[in-house]
Amino acid sequence: MRIVIVGGVAAGMSAASRARRFSPDAQIVVFDRGEFVSYGACGLPYVIGGEVGDFGDLVARTPEQMRARGIGVRTRHEVTGVDARAATVTVLDREAGRTTTEPFDRLLLATGVSAVRPAWAQTDLGGVHVLRDIPDGRALEASVAGARRACIVGGGYIGLELAEALRARGLSVVLLERGPEVAGRMLDPQLQAQVREELERGGVDVRCGVTVEGLTGTGHVTGVQTDAGLVRADLVVVAVGVKPNVELARAAGVRLGKTGAVAVNARQETNVPGIYSAGDNTQSTHRVTRRSVHIPLGLPANRMGRVAGVNMAGGNARFPGVVGTGIFKTFELGVARTGLTQTEADELGLNAVSVDVTSTDHAGYHSGSRPIHVRLTGERGTGRLLGAQLIGRNHLSVKRVDVVAALLGTRATAQDLFDADLAYAPPFSGVWDVLLVAADRLHRQL
Amino acid sequence: MRIVIVGGVAAGMSAASRARRFSPDAQIVVFDRGEFVSYGACGLPYVIGGEVGDFGDLVARTPEQMRARGIGVRTRHEVTGVDARAATVTVLDREAGRTTTEPFDRLLLATGVSAVRPAWAQTDLGGVHVLRDIPDGRALEASVAGARRACIVGGGYIGLELAEALRARGLSVVLLERGPEVAGRMLDPQLQAQVREELERGGVDVRCGVTVEGLTGTGHVTGVQTDAGLVRADLVVVAVGVKPNVELARAAGVRLGKTGAVAVNARQETNVPGIYSAGDNTQSTHRVTRRSVHIPLGLPANRMGRVAGVNMAGGNARFPGVVGTGIFKTFELGVARTGLTQTEADELGLNAVSVDVTSTDHAGYHSGSRPIHVRLTGERGTGRLLGAQLIGRNHLSVKRVDVVAALLGTRATAQDLFDADLAYAPPFSGVWDVLLVAADRLHRQL
Repeated sequence: MRIVIVGGVAAGMSAASRARRFSPDAQIVVFDRGEFVSYGACGLPYVIGGEVGDFGDLVARTPEQMRARGIGVRTRHEVTGVDARAATVTVLDREAGRTTTEPFDRLLLATGVSAVRPAWAQTDLGGVHVLRDIPDGRALEASVAGARRACIVGGGYIGLELAEALRARGLSVVLLERGPEVAGRMLDPQLQAQVREELERGGVDVRCGVTVEGLTGTGHVTGVQTDAGLVRADLVVVAVGVKPNVELARAAGVRLGKTGAVAVNARQETNVPGIYSAGDNTQSTHRVTRRSVHIPLGLPANRMGRVAGVNMAGGNARFPGVVGTGIFKTFELGVARTGLTQTEADELGLNAVSVDVTSTDHAGYHSGSRPIHVRLTGERGTGRLLGAQLIGRNHLSVKRVDVVAALLGTRATAQDLFDADLAYAPPFSGVWDVLLVAADRLHRQL
Repeated sequence: MRIVIVGGVAAGMSAASRARRFSPDAQIVVFDRGEFVSYGACGLPYVIGGEVGDFGDLVARTPEQMRARGIGVRTRHEVTGVDARAATVTVLDREAGRTTTEPFDRLLLATGVSAVRPAWAQTDLGGVHVLRDIPDGRALEASVAGARRACIVGGGYIGLELAEALRARGLSVVLLERGPEVAGRMLDPQLQAQVREELERGGVDVRCGVTVEGLTGTGHVTGVQTDAGLVRADLVVVAVGVKPNVELARAAGVRLGKTGAVAVNARQETNVPGIYSAGDNTQSTHRVTRRSVHIPLGLPANRMGRVAGVNMAGGNARFPGVVGTGIFKTFELGVARTGLTQTEADELGLNAVSVDVTSTDHAGYHSGSRPIHVRLTGERGTGRLLGAQLIGRNHLSVKRVDVVAALLGTRATAQDLFDADLAYAPPFSGVWDVLLVAADRLHRQL
């Protein structure tokens, strides 16, 4: 049994490790076009910000460590083609410039996503960056050292995390967002302003409803031209989204889903026998809506990889699906969501209602107490929970989103949440945790 | 409709507020033998420690505020007798020294618990305290001001919280525990040492396996005599447990349960028609074991009070039961539990198994990362979750016990927990939250 894995970061390495454990005999080879494998890409903004010492700290296991476990890791090896009928891949050794053909019994596509670069960002100007992998991070780090004015384009997770990081490095930061507010796809409109206000409190110049038209400069960037004028900048980060890397899948005759990412079943099998897909390049099933979604995040990617690894090695694991959980920190603020927002529920035609509760994360009288806002969404008629959005001024307080995330997996009702025997002591929550207060209000409206 | 409530703290005031909302017409009278009502007793150690400014800050609503909402609050009025057949209570006005008879249509016993005072602690010596209510807190505060050496007797929640508080006030602290370790009834033996070590790190002299025999001193306490010698102390806190206040219930012919607390159905009704019971004096059903338990804690007390309030006012609410969740902080450490420990499961004859995972609360490479230990217990054969115990060096990290607490209410399996789409970003957890790591290991053993 020869298992070939394309891509050695989250899903690919999880798959390799699982396959190794499950089948001591299988030959396992991982090809990655880059230099680094098995690292936490989500940590990149925190290296820039200084909370992580070095890019090397993000690496969980080196190729040597993987090889010692019997996993053949070949970095700087790019898989350029797949022949599904012959069960071979074409591999370019980028160091040697040599191409070989490699056979497989099972093939995993764990090719991830690439940062979207709009036409204006396809440039050779110095000081223009995206942030997807360690080389991106090193290049950005090198630019930060000499920069004074940063312009971040895009108000999603990475843009918001980087805004804090670049302010921490002493740069002035302008954040441009095309939509009416930052975090626009993550939260309902009622909560978005709080995120913007926190950025502004942290000294970020946030400009929403602004479209970028181009960059200025020769050799090195000097500014970002927008429909609202020129923004001077000697450092530009393009964080406008990602797209799944599906070229190999297409070449292999693997079917893509409506989301544009690879379609798989719960065993991570594609439509082509013997070919699996896992990670950010792959779509998954939303457990609340039962629809296919493309949510490229760390935990689902790792989980899909595990499932694929077990199954490629002859086992039988199933990916349970996702519920759309996401979380980030920017400055002091923690922001989290799970399930559906009211906006998303409305788009799906569900009979949804939301309640908002502003309370404190500790007992109100405790000096450690900070504000927390919970928006909880449920379905009229069935009473079931649909989702939650949380914003807390002690960022750790929003990790309680996990309570709702876990319950969404069991198709629980608002009453189930209200009945939960949650932990209470003054340094942790009010006697009625804010989630319970919200559940109480919600279930009376369902 | 006249609703009489005995006791105006957690359960009593919750009941009064709910009954008021549910029935605008009912006459609602609350008698409390003390001076203060509607306060957060769990906050008392934090006033001593300085995290709460003043005992008055613990009061959620004053008697005047309650009266403005149409709830007749009579402080310093002690209910001394119940005549169930006549449907009256005897009330002693402690200020006027006058006794009256008051009729009721519905009666709620929300009489709470009292601190246990062993024979040796029944003394007039100055400097010897328990901590159950605001007068206790004020008396303790007055003693702290002039004290240098504190001795806390009892290593449960209050003793452990006070140990931190008294150290913060600059006192030397000796903590005496009769059992082999502190937190002995809350955690499995495997975890107890970590709590003791944290106390020792905080400068507390912890002595386990020690039995108190008496106090020394004349006028003011000078020491605690134990079977392991004399402990010098000018301040002694007796925190060896609580017992339910059931004298009135007994007098009224209300049945007690095996736990010694008042037995009720899910509507908080006792065996005597028209008489309800709620709060710390009342037992409840454990949702994991279906047995009656007596767990006197803030959230269940408030919840029982709400249920009783609705039902007394003519509604139909049900108390869902508890799952044995508890949490406390001592020094930097957060400690939490829910469901059953392995010890408790063994005592019940369940076929239980536990796994231990030590990990970090943030991504391991993040500078905010602190150790967290999770012990997760499940049932062989059924695969269901039975309980969790958490110890974290960032105290807030153990609030994730709520994920397990919520799932226990839905009788979830370890697989359900493992499948949960929990929130991940480096400042919040590892990509596999420690709960998921534990669930993975556990479900493979069930």
